[in-house]
Amino acid sequence: MSELTSDGFLGGRLRIAQPRGGFRSGADAVMLAAACPAQAGQAVLDLGCGAGVAGLCLGWRVPGLHLVGLEQQAAYADLATRNAAANGIAMQVVTGDLARPPAQLRSQIFDHVIANPPYFLGGTPAPDGGRAIARREETPLSVWIDSALRRLRPRGMVTLIQRADRLDAMLASLSGRAGSVAILPVAGRAGREAGRVIVQATKGARGPLRLLAPFVMHRAPAHPGDREDLTEAASAVLREGSPLTDLFAKVS
Amino acid sequence: MSELTSDGFLGGRLRIAQPRGGFRSGADAVMLAAACPAQAGQAVLDLGCGAGVAGLCLGWRVPGLHLVGLEQQAAYADLATRNAAANGIAMQVVTGDLARPPAQLRSQIFDHVIANPPYFLGGTPAPDGGRAIARREETPLSVWIDSALRRLRPRGMVTLIQRADRLDAMLASLSGRAGSVAILPVAGRAGREAGRVIVQATKGARGPLRLLAPFVMHRAPAHPGDREDLTEAASAVLREGSPLTDLFAKVS
Repeated sequence: MSELTSDGFLGGRLRIAQPRGGFRSGADAVMLAAACPAQAGQAVLDLGCGAGVAGLCLGWRVPGLHLVGLEQQAAYADLATRNAAANGIAMQVVTGDLARPPAQLRSQIFDHVIANPPYFLGGTPAPDGGRAIARREETPLSVWIDSALRRLRPRGMVTLIQRADRLDAMLASLSGRAGSVAILPVAGRAGREAGRVIVQATKGARGPLRLLAPFVMHRAPAHPGDREDLTEAASAVLREGSPLTDLFAKVS
Repeated sequence: MSELTSDGFLGGRLRIAQPRGGFRSGADAVMLAAACPAQAGQAVLDLGCGAGVAGLCLGWRVPGLHLVGLEQQAAYADLATRNAAANGIAMQVVTGDLARPPAQLRSQIFDHVIANPPYFLGGTPAPDGGRAIARREETPLSVWIDSALRRLRPRGMVTLIQRADRLDAMLASLSGRAGSVAILPVAGRAGREAGRVIVQATKGARGPLRLLAPFVMHRAPAHPGDREDLTEAASAVLREGSPLTDLFAKVS
């Protein structure tokens, strides 16, 4: 693994060591954590946790979770363990393949699973092997979702962030096994198509699908150069650790 | 069929006779027509055309189409034929079941198919039998989509409007047979979840799915009583017959 950098998340509330040249988590991991409605006392699995950003953001926001990360690459699992300790957040990190999880994970059942599966199918090799594995889809998306659903209790919830163009594949993998699906489109700017979707579903539920209003990241209609132009809502999530869970809550 | 009313569409540019107590088309049929990018000289099938509103709105906007409607109920098919004539728009109406289309339709191939499949599964019986059949899902959504794809030429396009909570069923039925899917969420008001989706797909294409920015129908954050409060964009579509096709066009 290459040289490490120490990066601030949630406006510096978390310090996360990540490899300079490897896979680096960003806004997507923070958005994923913000969307998960886990409550104190619940068990949460961060599937493919990398250096731990999503799980640790969630652990920072919701104290008292039983937080577990599963990571295939030992170097990232070690980093996640150290990042948890450095931030004073309890997170157990298990090294293993999500398609064949180790026994210590198979014996556990979770209230929530969060995952940010890789975005790229194939593509050019990255200079760092770890980055290549983390960003390229070595494991099909369907296997990620299957693995998440297997680790959930009945009525447990899976929350995923993924490229918007994979929405059909996500819905197909959830079909018949999880319901009450809520889709939060995430758009770079107002009026643009969604680049990401956050998809949340409840294992064994049969409620109707909901397509929520988009969450918009940036204020300006076009990129304003170096100036930070996050929307107020995006800034609250990324800089202050505010949850997105209200957006998913059903309006009664 | 009950007594007829004569209703104005596209700001009165079309007059459509519909049964007072039966199935009555509204904004959804107009939105469907607005989303279809058919061009002069092309063949378009309005699957389940009812009294013909969607097909006739499209025919009004795009002169020179070869326009065909398929309708199961003879009384509605007759009404569609008369509505076409009354508005001076050439539209051939075929009576038949979309699951087993008559030979005269099976021998035709279309550039575009538009459909507004029924929204309700079961539900309470409507006083008018025609309305009951048109609004209740006697024919599964998968059969509508299968029927649409069978009538399309390779690279022909299907455009559907449907309840947003059926998005997963629509994507599942399109999967493997049509691609370059574009989803236009239609929301009653800004910031609300989508009530409808317009889904457009190309037969045999493999392009990525796109989740577009929502189209918002009303300006006020809550219902303002009787006052008309369409957004400028919705008013242009519903009152002036403007197309929605630019929203679906890929940004290069």
